[in-house]
Amino acid sequence: MNLILLDPNDLTDDGHICITDPRRLTHLRDVHRSAPGDLLTVGVTNGAMGKAMLKDITSERAYFKLESLDEAPPPPLPVHLVLALPRPRMLARTLEHVTALGVKEITLLHTKRVEKSYWQSPELRADKIHQHLVLGLEQARDTQLPTVTLSKGFRPFLDQQLPDLLSQRRGLVAHPGMPNPCPRDIAVPTLLLVGPEGGFIPWEVDQLLAAGCEGMHLGPRILRVETAVTALLSRLF
Amino acid sequence: MNLILLDPNDLTDDGHICITDPRRLTHLRDVHRSAPGDLLTVGVTNGAMGKAMLKDITSERAYFKLESLDEAPPPPLPVHLVLALPRPRMLARTLEHVTALGVKEITLLHTKRVEKSYWQSPELRADKIHQHLVLGLEQARDTQLPTVTLSKGFRPFLDQQLPDLLSQRRGLVAHPGMPNPCPRDIAVPTLLLVGPEGGFIPWEVDQLLAAGCEGMHLGPRILRVETAVTALLSRLF
Repeated sequence: MNLILLDPNDLTDDGHICITDPRRLTHLRDVHRSAPGDLLTVGVTNGAMGKAMLKDITSERAYFKLESLDEAPPPPLPVHLVLALPRPRMLARTLEHVTALGVKEITLLHTKRVEKSYWQSPELRADKIHQHLVLGLEQARDTQLPTVTLSKGFRPFLDQQLPDLLSQRRGLVAHPGMPNPCPRDIAVPTLLLVGPEGGFIPWEVDQLLAAGCEGMHLGPRILRVETAVTALLSRLF
Repeated sequence: MNLILLDPNDLTDDGHICITDPRRLTHLRDVHRSAPGDLLTVGVTNGAMGKAMLKDITSERAYFKLESLDEAPPPPLPVHLVLALPRPRMLARTLEHVTALGVKEITLLHTKRVEKSYWQSPELRADKIHQHLVLGLEQARDTQLPTVTLSKGFRPFLDQQLPDLLSQRRGLVAHPGMPNPCPRDIAVPTLLLVGPEGGFIPWEVDQLLAAGCEGMHLGPRILRVETAVTALLSRLF
């Protein structure tokens, strides 16, 4: 937790912050070992960042005086990430990685090789997803929550969402065996599509290429989804 | 397990493979759901890769006929990674990520902000480290085991190891706040140094720069060690 992400509710009218939830409180006490007088980095969800001084901490609450709130969060990556739904534990970690890296638009997509049972996982509940996004923001010192969209059919995605997503973006499909390597340091708005373990099926790749995406690969090594997504984002931007 | 990594012991004199250990056996049965007639990718530890046909699988053994063994493993990354020892769970995942990405030389280093207790972790036992390296190789379809060296003192590392490591390599210290961004697509032998959570202390950075390393950063976001290392390797190579 390199930033304390604040709900508007955590702020009082007179420029103080009061935190009472066990997760942040435990972290402040047991990991940071914060003590009165400490100056900590804070940020308002979807707002500015600044500093707050800890006045008082008990097992029930941490009370801060807000010292400043005038810093902009770090710039986002210019990417909409479309990710074939990974298995639940991998999803959790991948959401944290990509949020920390600055992704702000995420679509989780069904493809042929996504196990249908993954769509029933409790990890897809809005509160669980929110939790992982918050952990990513707190890690990276960011305040801008990503949006996560669930797209449970590949064909409806192709027909109803993809054309809009591609209208202002360069579409890139990461897929082993494509002729071109992943481009480097592109500064343009991008739609990045990443398949499931086992990859997109050939028909899916054909449809994405026909819709205007470019295929590209990360080399001969087969990477886990969480490793591949981090490697792709770091190389692209 | 995208490749079955073989010990020389797994190979018979007459061109067959016999696997009896529960880990690989369970994976073949429960994850791959392999059946006789399946052609699987195999590779000999530190040797060639090829194909083998499953002849027979029981709860006690899997028996294959080796069909070919003439493929070279994918090329390694030209990097020696010096990583401040992360906490044990992070270490395990990071070893898997970097092995999958093709790192072949790893030094785990003590620095001021590494908790001393981490050096007592069972994750540092040779057999545990070996296990994570094998998982990384099996994931990426590689056979070349990385070497892992433990360097439990920063000063002895500086005095006795660093000069040799830098004699044929470009030294890069990843550290927030350095003036230059991480370079991209460098094809030269590199020594990459990555600090612990909380970073190197200023004295350590000064010593590394004085020894001939260049400082560089990955941007304003604070990343977890496992995310940062993957992002650095993907951007550098």
